[in-house]
Amino acid sequence: MARTASLSGFPEWLPEERLVEQHVLDTLRRVFELHGFGSIETRAVETVGQLLRKGEIDKEVYGLSRLQDDEGNAAAASQDPNALALHFDLTVPFARYVVENAGYLAFPFRRYQIQKVWRGERPQEGRAREFTQADIDVVGDGELPFRYDVEIALVIAEALSALPIPEFKLRINNRKLAEGFYRGIGLVDTAGVLRSIDKLEKIGAARVSELLQSELGATPEQAELALKLAGIRTEDTAFVEQVRALGVTDPLLEEGLSELEQVIHAVVQRAPGKVVADLSIARGLDYYTGTVVETVLVGHEQLGSICSGGRYDALASKGSRKFPGVGLSIGVTRLVSRILSQDFAKASRSVPTAVLVALSNDDSWSAAQDVAAQLRGRGISTEVAAKAEKFGKQIKFADRRGIPFVWFTDDDGKHQVKDIRSGEQTDAEPATWMPPSEDLAVQVVTG
Amino acid sequence: MARTASLSGFPEWLPEERLVEQHVLDTLRRVFELHGFGSIETRAVETVGQLLRKGEIDKEVYGLSRLQDDEGNAAAASQDPNALALHFDLTVPFARYVVENAGYLAFPFRRYQIQKVWRGERPQEGRAREFTQADIDVVGDGELPFRYDVEIALVIAEALSALPIPEFKLRINNRKLAEGFYRGIGLVDTAGVLRSIDKLEKIGAARVSELLQSELGATPEQAELALKLAGIRTEDTAFVEQVRALGVTDPLLEEGLSELEQVIHAVVQRAPGKVVADLSIARGLDYYTGTVVETVLVGHEQLGSICSGGRYDALASKGSRKFPGVGLSIGVTRLVSRILSQDFAKASRSVPTAVLVALSNDDSWSAAQDVAAQLRGRGISTEVAAKAEKFGKQIKFADRRGIPFVWFTDDDGKHQVKDIRSGEQTDAEPATWMPPSEDLAVQVVTG
Repeated sequence: MARTASLSGFPEWLPEERLVEQHVLDTLRRVFELHGFGSIETRAVETVGQLLRKGEIDKEVYGLSRLQDDEGNAAAASQDPNALALHFDLTVPFARYVVENAGYLAFPFRRYQIQKVWRGERPQEGRAREFTQADIDVVGDGELPFRYDVEIALVIAEALSALPIPEFKLRINNRKLAEGFYRGIGLVDTAGVLRSIDKLEKIGAARVSELLQSELGATPEQAELALKLAGIRTEDTAFVEQVRALGVTDPLLEEGLSELEQVIHAVVQRAPGKVVADLSIARGLDYYTGTVVETVLVGHEQLGSICSGGRYDALASKGSRKFPGVGLSIGVTRLVSRILSQDFAKASRSVPTAVLVALSNDDSWSAAQDVAAQLRGRGISTEVAAKAEKFGKQIKFADRRGIPFVWFTDDDGKHQVKDIRSGEQTDAEPATWMPPSEDLAVQVVTG
Repeated sequence: MARTASLSGFPEWLPEERLVEQHVLDTLRRVFELHGFGSIETRAVETVGQLLRKGEIDKEVYGLSRLQDDEGNAAAASQDPNALALHFDLTVPFARYVVENAGYLAFPFRRYQIQKVWRGERPQEGRAREFTQADIDVVGDGELPFRYDVEIALVIAEALSALPIPEFKLRINNRKLAEGFYRGIGLVDTAGVLRSIDKLEKIGAARVSELLQSELGATPEQAELALKLAGIRTEDTAFVEQVRALGVTDPLLEEGLSELEQVIHAVVQRAPGKVVADLSIARGLDYYTGTVVETVLVGHEQLGSICSGGRYDALASKGSRKFPGVGLSIGVTRLVSRILSQDFAKASRSVPTAVLVALSNDDSWSAAQDVAAQLRGRGISTEVAAKAEKFGKQIKFADRRGIPFVWFTDDDGKHQVKDIRSGEQTDAEPATWMPPSEDLAVQVVTG
């Protein structure tokens, strides 16, 4: 991270940084697959009509046009629903994929999807124009048992726990709880209340109270109750009693309380210290209908949420057929940027190579390739020197590339291998020698 | 492959197809890393100026514009070198990356890069608008020993041999050989001759001869000699004698003969049957300066080249500093499409999950999660049923998703596991039971 991106908002990693990102991606993939999530990828582009289908859009979308198209169709792209644009998340494309392929999928369908997405927003710390997301979702056909909400939270807690990052907290709420509560106190524009509550962290309680009264016609008492609800934050299921103590009753509120209680109970039990019931979480503009989740890195709250999502009763629909879903999305680039800038982890070396096979003379290249093939056959990443320079130069080359071992074969076919960090040189056989396990593959070690 | 892409030229895979693609990508990654190639990714976009830097461009490029930009800047994009566009290959971005990060890289720098690229061309079999390429390159600072040309060919032969594809042939030529030969027979516009020879497969020898005479001023004898050279095709180094027999002498020709001989000799030795010296290979429009490679799947020649590339003396430059490179690019999407459409390989199941833990009653979910956690802890992909339906229904669910084993725990805590393919049910312990190794992870098996 000595460098800045040459194009603002489009980060690129050096090889040793990319190794950290690969470690993060491999770890997520392993955890997701252990939980039965299979991979899919969707194309990078959607039609503008598809992207704007949900109506209100607060993302800056990149439209596409062929450079060799002389007719200036591009300018009209936003008017043409069939024009192409880059996806800005993985949820909209996944919904489209589910509808298109419903006949080929077994429901509840669970998938992970790790891809780049693009948003033409002003770049800032933790906010890039091109970034990688890692999503998991379970989607049902017609119905989806609530238990998947609990499961998704557990999978994500396990996945994040496996990453080289500091302590994190899943902040979980439930839309039914909030909406039922607002209804119970007589505020009927529940979406409007959610939008106001969503601004709590940004503008503070006093201004939100004003908003609720001026824009939504709330009484001071109603506004106070809504804010009291949003103030509840417990690391266990104590929130249930705290909500009940506010004296509001509503069937939807009860349903939400029960759902949130189940999620918090399970995560407290299985991933202690990783969760908080936070009744201020609104995720205002999105189309969630139950569980909602945001995630903070403790001590790095200003980075924003590193993992968000929730439940939607209709992720997608096809005629009268509805596909409810629950899912979470990890901001991989945001996490990796932070891991690198704060030295939370680094690669043990910058190349996969464990061994450089040196050349004693220019004719030994083919014999050196034989040695290399034997080592590779046993999983040892190996390069062969390209020129029979002085051994000192070949060792220096390995050192510059961060390769820990150099292999020598003398004219009698006797093999030796040198650990160039310690200088120790020992006899070795291509058919049997192994580096110490910590040197076999690149390790990503926490700082 | 029962389906067609909903957007022409933008293929998407079903989960079981994606497993085949993942197998291909994992295999390439493993071989590349065993040979000391590290991963990098570059951003998906470049400036138009960067993309058009090489002058003549025969690729259809997708330009980008923000949909919410009302000023119609998009239409002018192709005029503005700072406008953004999607990359159409991985070579141009890699060259830019090398120049920008030269101070942080150890040369010769070797990297692999597996990413999507975009071309706004008319889609057809084997030609998509969005597709994945897997590139390896070695790039030097100032100079790059010729031996890397040999090495790159060997690495690619090994990588392709590890894929579930039919027999392939690397068709290799050398620009120095061809250009030296043309010069030696008195044809000075060697680039022009190459462009004509490049059309040989498309238009035939007679028309190429006409072109050489009408457009390049060749005599019938010169045209005949150029075509004779292009007709040489040998599976070993016999081409050297066949070229010499044409009686042409030129120092560049000699250099090219020697280089091509070294490459063919090494590949014949280390990857027998995988290579042919094919003196018709021109790769006309590209900027190669030595070794040039195309690759065909035997019996699927109409698919086009599945792996192409070569040597360029100046992959990139920074002032007077030159970065020569040699590299090859595998058309992953083209290969995977063919693997799927011809059933060359398929996944042993469509989900990563090996075990579904059934619920005997609704309260057993937490105990079932304990069983699942133990299995996952030993690398067994496991799902837990979401509802305590009748066992028959839970087994049917596993069957529909292609999960081979269902786990039962009775009220006394006794465990059994059923292979739902054979119906065999046996006692098992969560701490020790393992599925047969072929069922542990999804296998991609050749058809």
